[in-house]
Amino acid sequence: MKILDNIYLPVVKDLEQFEQYFASILKTNIGLLDVVVRYLVSRKGKRIRPLLTFLTAGLVGKINERTHVGAAMVELLHTATLVHDDVVDEAKERRGLLSINARWNNKIAVLLGDFLLAKGLLVAIENKEFGFLEILSTAVKLMSEGELLQIQTTKAEEASEEKYFEIIHSKTASLISACCEIGCLSSTIDEKARTRIKEFGRLIGLAFQIRDDILDFTGKSNIIGKPIGNDLRERKITLPLIYALQNVNTKEAKSILTFLRKNKKKKEIKEIVEFVIKNNGIILAQHRAKELIEKAKQIILEFDDNPYRQSLISLADYIIEREK
Amino acid sequence: MKILDNIYLPVVKDLEQFEQYFASILKTNIGLLDVVVRYLVSRKGKRIRPLLTFLTAGLVGKINERTHVGAAMVELLHTATLVHDDVVDEAKERRGLLSINARWNNKIAVLLGDFLLAKGLLVAIENKEFGFLEILSTAVKLMSEGELLQIQTTKAEEASEEKYFEIIHSKTASLISACCEIGCLSSTIDEKARTRIKEFGRLIGLAFQIRDDILDFTGKSNIIGKPIGNDLRERKITLPLIYALQNVNTKEAKSILTFLRKNKKKKEIKEIVEFVIKNNGIILAQHRAKELIEKAKQIILEFDDNPYRQSLISLADYIIEREK
Repeated sequence: MKILDNIYLPVVKDLEQFEQYFASILKTNIGLLDVVVRYLVSRKGKRIRPLLTFLTAGLVGKINERTHVGAAMVELLHTATLVHDDVVDEAKERRGLLSINARWNNKIAVLLGDFLLAKGLLVAIENKEFGFLEILSTAVKLMSEGELLQIQTTKAEEASEEKYFEIIHSKTASLISACCEIGCLSSTIDEKARTRIKEFGRLIGLAFQIRDDILDFTGKSNIIGKPIGNDLRERKITLPLIYALQNVNTKEAKSILTFLRKNKKKKEIKEIVEFVIKNNGIILAQHRAKELIEKAKQIILEFDDNPYRQSLISLADYIIEREK
Repeated sequence: MKILDNIYLPVVKDLEQFEQYFASILKTNIGLLDVVVRYLVSRKGKRIRPLLTFLTAGLVGKINERTHVGAAMVELLHTATLVHDDVVDEAKERRGLLSINARWNNKIAVLLGDFLLAKGLLVAIENKEFGFLEILSTAVKLMSEGELLQIQTTKAEEASEEKYFEIIHSKTASLISACCEIGCLSSTIDEKARTRIKEFGRLIGLAFQIRDDILDFTGKSNIIGKPIGNDLRERKITLPLIYALQNVNTKEAKSILTFLRKNKKKKEIKEIVEFVIKNNGIILAQHRAKELIEKAKQIILEFDDNPYRQSLISLADYIIEREK
């Protein structure tokens, strides 16, 4: 995590404050809830989303209280969706620890997710940050729509690049873009900056998801915490497979899709993974992610230089280099 | 449903408009989501919550566009929690039709719930109804806290009346109270009226849950859609049981609680149901609900008479007379 350490440098103190604020927001007088929340807070992730909020705020202005409110909101909503995701995916692990549904049960996980969502709203309302609220509500709506669109697409077995980008825009890029937009909004009233920063967030968000989808083919299961080919088992058709299919004739493509539909076993999943690698699916998807990151960096480089700008550039690079 | 028909009378047109508005809010261009939403809308319930919003608005002023926005918000949030509830309870039916999780699956149900929540927020934001939003966010937070408190209490096997009321205040009365408060707020700026209407909502909300808990002992399973003794199987200690336990000596009470902890079978559940009936648990709980309703009606009777007032009085009576 050497690269990441450097990225965090300009906002180390802000992130420390963030942790305290985040934990204090989640204090309740219900014993059971407190235990679950403490477990959740202890299991903290890379905090990429609040990090983006702080860095974008620092890029265009001065980090202030509103930035902290925004950072807490994005992490509350993100955590809520993770907790719900683990229920719907029946995931047993998250960040190397048991998921809430595995450690407790589905009931507690769904309720905790709703509690976190409501808390996110209340933080916004208490601080009268209705602009942030609108941005995040739209993101939450898009996220659920994106996941539902993916399920629909999986059933129809569509394998179009266009549909893929529509899905990942909704389910991943919308929230990452929202984190950046909120950071920007917290420290400047410059509307042009806001539009550019929002677009930066969208681009790195798309690249983030493409990298995730690549890691599903290439990642070591013990690092990423999920077995390789998990998406294929769920019949999700992601960019590496889409590109590999474009590199073979229609007949072969059809037979691969039929094979995917019929098989879910380890050995057969491995065959599809090999098909994708052999037909340059990984290389092409990584290339596409890199293009998006380059475009994103161009946007950031138009702003005046400062330590936050450097971190945002490094973070953009990290997104497509990370192994987990 | 003769009684209910009369109650609806002053707001029949508003409720028709409500149905159109509600369906229009939920339109999306994602085919799968549209199918699920149409199913959800077709399965419409008694619409008690929007009904309360309209009636309270009419009681203190004139029903207007803001009332309609409020009514849509409360029904969106209520529907979201129902869809999530069915996931956590693994319920197969709702309103005589298959639940979303049973008809589709958990994944779609959780995502649909999140989508409905987000839509509720967006309706508020688009209409700049931040006051409504605060009321409802607090209610959603309380609802998840109340459910979690109930789980915690079930585990500790506490059987106190005080804890019971704390739980049902959070999990049920808070939203019903919010529906009334929003109705009032939409048509008057009178703060005193607001406080009284809010208290009215809290009281009928408590009575509503007590009646639900009574029906778990006495209801016919084919009407209420759940088998009798469902709460006991989940080891929920509700008011009828609490009162019955107060009517026996400590030793017997302890043995009943031990019996409950160990047994979940039909025959044994039946024994506990009989214990509760024999020791006047049902009669006393119904009496308590009636007291709450009388207090609630007193509050309403202090307002000037009009058709909405009469409906609210009848609705209050209906809440503790209903058989499902």
